Amino acid sequence: MGEFDLIARYFTRPVRRNPLGVGDDCALLQPAPGMQLAVSTDLLVEGRHFLSTVDPERLGHKALAVNLSDLAACGAQPLAFTLSLSLPQVDERWLAGFARGLFALADTHACELVGGDTTRGPLCINITVFGEVPAGQALLRSGARAGDDLWVSGTLGDARLALEAFRGTVSLPQDVFEAARRRLEQPQPRVALGLALRGLATAAIDLSDGLAGDLGHVLRASRVGAAIEGTAAAGLFAAGRGGFRLPEAQVQDLVFAGGDDYELAFTAPAGRRAGVEAAAMRAGAPVTRIGRVRAEPGLVVVDAQGVARPVDPAGFDHFGGP
Amino acid sequence: MGEFDLIARYFTRPVRRNPLGVGDDCALLQPAPGMQLAVSTDLLVEGRHFLSTVDPERLGHKALAVNLSDLAACGAQPLAFTLSLSLPQVDERWLAGFARGLFALADTHACELVGGDTTRGPLCINITVFGEVPAGQALLRSGARAGDDLWVSGTLGDARLALEAFRGTVSLPQDVFEAARRRLEQPQPRVALGLALRGLATAAIDLSDGLAGDLGHVLRASRVGAAIEGTAAAGLFAAGRGGFRLPEAQVQDLVFAGGDDYELAFTAPAGRRAGVEAAAMRAGAPVTRIGRVRAEPGLVVVDAQGVARPVDPAGFDHFGGP
Repeated sequence: MGEFDLIARYFTRPVRRNPLGVGDDCALLQPAPGMQLAVSTDLLVEGRHFLSTVDPERLGHKALAVNLSDLAACGAQPLAFTLSLSLPQVDERWLAGFARGLFALADTHACELVGGDTTRGPLCINITVFGEVPAGQALLRSGARAGDDLWVSGTLGDARLALEAFRGTVSLPQDVFEAARRRLEQPQPRVALGLALRGLATAAIDLSDGLAGDLGHVLRASRVGAAIEGTAAAGLFAAGRGGFRLPEAQVQDLVFAGGDDYELAFTAPAGRRAGVEAAAMRAGAPVTRIGRVRAEPGLVVVDAQGVARPVDPAGFDHFGGP
Repeated sequence: MGEFDLIARYFTRPVRRNPLGVGDDCALLQPAPGMQLAVSTDLLVEGRHFLSTVDPERLGHKALAVNLSDLAACGAQPLAFTLSLSLPQVDERWLAGFARGLFALADTHACELVGGDTTRGPLCINITVFGEVPAGQALLRSGARAGDDLWVSGTLGDARLALEAFRGTVSLPQDVFEAARRRLEQPQPRVALGLALRGLATAAIDLSDGLAGDLGHVLRASRVGAAIEGTAAAGLFAAGRGGFRLPEAQVQDLVFAGGDDYELAFTAPAGRRAGVEAAAMRAGAPVTRIGRVRAEPGLVVVDAQGVARPVDPAGFDHFGGP
C-alpha cells in the first residue's frame, strides 16, 4: 500500500469542482440546472494502444485526449474525470511524466481529476470523463438526414502513417515522421469544434478507428448512406499536403482506415454551410466538406470520373505489415 | 474488431436510464433536480484482486459489488455504471458467466450499464458507478465528532479467512470454508443501509482494506480518534459466531486487517442509537456498536480489563503466509 499511496500523491491536486476533493468513497458532481452529464470511458492497454517505449508525458496526454474526443463528438463541455491506473512497478520518473502530460491537457480544458484507483498490475489506464451539455442538445450518431453535407475536421492518416513507420512497412523522411508521430502520440481533441457545432450539426462522431468504420456507425444509427468524393477524401491526407507522396491505394488506406485520428466527422444540412464554416473558424478547427448523406444505405466513394464504388472495409491493406 | 463486437453483444441490453442506450460516443445522465451525482471507480486486476480460477459469475458480481459498496458508503442510490473490460481472449463461456453475475446484481439495485469499452489485453475490469444523493446529504468521511458511537454492519474477517485458506496458512472445516469463500467472492454491498443512514450517521466508509486502515481514513478526515472495545470487535468475527475457534491474535488480524469485507463502518451521535437501530432493521442489515469516537487522535483497542492499547498496523500478521 505504501508505494501506492506514493502514486496517489502524483495525482492529488487542489480540486474545485468536486465539493469533496479526491479521497472520499465517491466524488460528487452536480450538473447545472437543465444540463445533462455526458459520460465516456476508454481503456488503454500497453502493447495494444501504445508502445512500451512511448514518452510517459505523451501517454498521459493521449489517455485523456481520447476521452475528451468522445465529449467533443457529443458537443459536451469537459468538467471532470476519474483515473484508474494499474502499474507493474512504481517508477517515479515515469509517474511524474505521465502526470505532467495528463494535467497539462486537463488544465487546457478546465477538466478536473475527481477520483480514481491505483493498483499494481499490467500497465492499464482507464479514464472516465464527464462533460456537460444542455438537455436535448447533445450531438448524436443518429441524426444524419439524406441531403446533409458530410464534413471532416483537420486532416487524416498521419497517426496510422507513424504506426506503419514504427512497424517498418514504410520509410519516411525525418520531418514527415516527426509530424506524423506527434499526431499518433499527442492527438488534440476537437472540444471547441464540438461545442461550436451544437445546433448546426445533425450527427457527429470522433474518428478513432478510421473514417470508413466510424462513419459506418453514424450511417447505421441514422439509417442512411453516404457518398464521399474521392478527391476531397485524398486531400485530407496530412503528409500529402506537405508534398509527401505515397501510392494512391496507400493514401486511401490511411484516410479511410487510418485510425487514431481523433478528428470529428459530422453531418449538417446543406443550408447551414456558411454557419458550419463560421463555427469552425471560431473554434480554430479547419473543416472540409467531403460528400453527401443519401437515402441509399452504405458508403460509396465517387472518383474524378463520377464513378461510385462501394467502400469495402476488407480492401484497406496496402502496407503489407505484420 | 469482429470478436470484440461479439463481446459487446454480451453487455448490450435494453437501457432505460440513458436516453441514448449504449453505443453513442457518450452516455447521457441527468440527476433529478436538487440531486448530486456520486461517482466511484474501481480497477480489478487478475492475480491481485481475484484468482484466475474464480467462477466468472462470482467475478461479475464482485466487480460491480465493490463499486456499489462505495455508493453505499456515501448514502447514494445506484443509477448506472460503465464497464471497461480487457480480456486475453474471447471465451464465450467465461463472458456469459461474467455477464450473468454482473447483471443479476445490477438488476437487484436497478443499476444500468450505460457505456463501456472492451479490448484485448491482460484480464482487467474497470467499473465506474453513478449514484444519486440529495445535495448536501452524502455521508462523508469527515463528519465524525468526539462522543459519537462507532458502528459496524454485519460481520468481519470471513473474506480474509477464505484467502488464508486459499494460501494454505489455515485449514478450515468445509462448511466454514464455503461460507467464508462466499463472503470473499460474492460480497453484498450495503446499499439499503447506506440510504437508511442518511441524516443519522455523521461519517461512513466501506471496509475494503480492513477495519483499522479504513477507519483510520475516517479519523484523519474528521480530525478525531476512536476507542474500540476489544470484546465487541472480536464478536464481529463471522466464523467465530458459528463456533469456529482461532487463536485470539489471528481473530484480531481478521477483524482489524481482514479486507474485502464490504461492510460499512459509521459514526452517529449517541442520542441517535434507537434511530440507527431502527434504520438498520428497515435495511435488513445487522449493526453492532463497537466503540466511541474521541478527541485524542489515533485508534486504541480497550481490553476486558479496561486497558487501552494503540492499534499498530504492523502488528497484524499472525498467519505467516507468503
